[in-house]
Amino acid sequence: MGIRGGIDLGGTKIQAVVVGDGADVLGSSRMPTPTSGGPPDVAAAMAAAMRDAAEEAGAGTGDLEGVGVGSPGVVADEDGTVAAARNLPDWEAAFPLRDALASHLDTKVRLGNDVQVATDAEFELGAGRDYSSILGVFWGTGVGGGIVLDGKPWLGRSAAGEIGHVVVRMGGRRCPCGRRGCMEAYAGRLALERRARELLEKGQSTKLFEIMEERGRDRLTSGVWARALKAEDAVAEKLIHQAVKALGAGIASSENLLDVEAVVIGGGMGIRLGEPYVKKIRDAMTPHLFVESNPPVVHVATLGDLGGAIGASLLVKR
Amino acid sequence: MGIRGGIDLGGTKIQAVVVGDGADVLGSSRMPTPTSGGPPDVAAAMAAAMRDAAEEAGAGTGDLEGVGVGSPGVVADEDGTVAAARNLPDWEAAFPLRDALASHLDTKVRLGNDVQVATDAEFELGAGRDYSSILGVFWGTGVGGGIVLDGKPWLGRSAAGEIGHVVVRMGGRRCPCGRRGCMEAYAGRLALERRARELLEKGQSTKLFEIMEERGRDRLTSGVWARALKAEDAVAEKLIHQAVKALGAGIASSENLLDVEAVVIGGGMGIRLGEPYVKKIRDAMTPHLFVESNPPVVHVATLGDLGGAIGASLLVKR
Repeated sequence: MGIRGGIDLGGTKIQAVVVGDGADVLGSSRMPTPTSGGPPDVAAAMAAAMRDAAEEAGAGTGDLEGVGVGSPGVVADEDGTVAAARNLPDWEAAFPLRDALASHLDTKVRLGNDVQVATDAEFELGAGRDYSSILGVFWGTGVGGGIVLDGKPWLGRSAAGEIGHVVVRMGGRRCPCGRRGCMEAYAGRLALERRARELLEKGQSTKLFEIMEERGRDRLTSGVWARALKAEDAVAEKLIHQAVKALGAGIASSENLLDVEAVVIGGGMGIRLGEPYVKKIRDAMTPHLFVESNPPVVHVATLGDLGGAIGASLLVKR
Repeated sequence: MGIRGGIDLGGTKIQAVVVGDGADVLGSSRMPTPTSGGPPDVAAAMAAAMRDAAEEAGAGTGDLEGVGVGSPGVVADEDGTVAAARNLPDWEAAFPLRDALASHLDTKVRLGNDVQVATDAEFELGAGRDYSSILGVFWGTGVGGGIVLDGKPWLGRSAAGEIGHVVVRMGGRRCPCGRRGCMEAYAGRLALERRARELLEKGQSTKLFEIMEERGRDRLTSGVWARALKAEDAVAEKLIHQAVKALGAGIASSENLLDVEAVVIGGGMGIRLGEPYVKKIRDAMTPHLFVESNPPVVHVATLGDLGGAIGASLLVKR
């Protein structure tokens, strides 16, 4: 029968899916990530989401061939642990997530890096399926990257793909990671929000925070940015313009190094702003592409919000 | 018996070697690259250099198992052609270099990219031999790069490895390639020479051009830079400091993306300035490395001037 589970573990939400052989989604469930407690509480919430998704698919978790997890932090699949997942509560030391989940779910569990599994999903089933080498760029709170070369994920020594921390301006803006001039310092949602607050405090007029409050949010979500752009808010337009320029330079740099066939842009911001902004990123890449006559194709990710969880389910097949 | 030939085709010189099974150099010959005429004249000079090297090895070129060529420009080994080799005389259109050389040399000929074969040589026989994934950085007139992942060259769609054109400062200095803010715009020997001339014209005092004339040169060779640094010339120190900063940022960016085990720094400038400056590059990388706790090792290339030709000879074994 061959149904598999996939869990995308994020800083704000846990997304679980049950997927059939053809990668059709048979059940899904989403819940907020616990913001207090520790790794065992997060594992319990993940198991609950997985049970709900399985129930929607008319199955128990024990019927699943296995469950794959896309996780932030330092993921060691062979050890079954995740460490340094700094968006998650009290999760610095290595926690045995594989065994904790397996005991909840009564099936085997595989762990992978969140961005890499989302890239794998786009490569196998989404916008990258017609190519043999792709670069996935996940433009969200930060900017993550995943690499597939000749059909296989390239993980380096486990930390490859950190495109958000490619330097686009030496000595430039401070990045949430603490370094200077990273692409993410100009493009990540968190960095954009910090910069917008600075400009507000300096007296620049912006509707960003009013829109945030109207929408009942406590941070500048991708939806808030999209609305502010639609309303032609000058601060939003300026900051997103700078983000696009940085993404163009950083992605073009990566292409000059890797020469992949296709770039797939996903993540909360990438998916929300969609093709019109992906076109702007493409245009911003052009002046920096060394082989301008043979640019990579640049697509929006097609699996949307479920891409990470679907990609995680692919880990079970490996 | 198994002796092979290798030719490194450069903009100023042609280096030929004959190599035995253990990659020991049995014969070598160097001659200036023709600066007039066209591709057939360059091919004739290459054949002459190869014949001299074979003679030194006590063989004829027909005794060679084959001859590999590391070439600039767009190299298509399957078609046997090289195009757009812009440092070479009248070499824009695709020229059938493989067949032209094979008819001169009476043995089979294989073509490869100059920087990639030099990287392969360091990977198999030089500073990269203890690793499975390396980034080769050739700091010379320009800055070229070669990538080996899991023991195999990564060529992308044939143009991978253009590390010199990774952007380190958006909107920054004009690169000899015409783009802005490339690493090579701060670090390449040609860019450094242009910048030094500008500073001289602006009235800054420097011994660089005096040293150049004393040494009977018409350009600022790596030896001229080394002597100016030794003499504590302020302009040379400032420009090389900027070059090192740019190399640090660009190589760290590439490492954040690729997460290779080792970086090997070669090229005319890299080999001439050697370990003291490679140490400075290592230090300049540190503030930009995303996984600072697990940096790549960074070595000087060990095969020196002959690395390109030795690497070219490896093409014959493939």
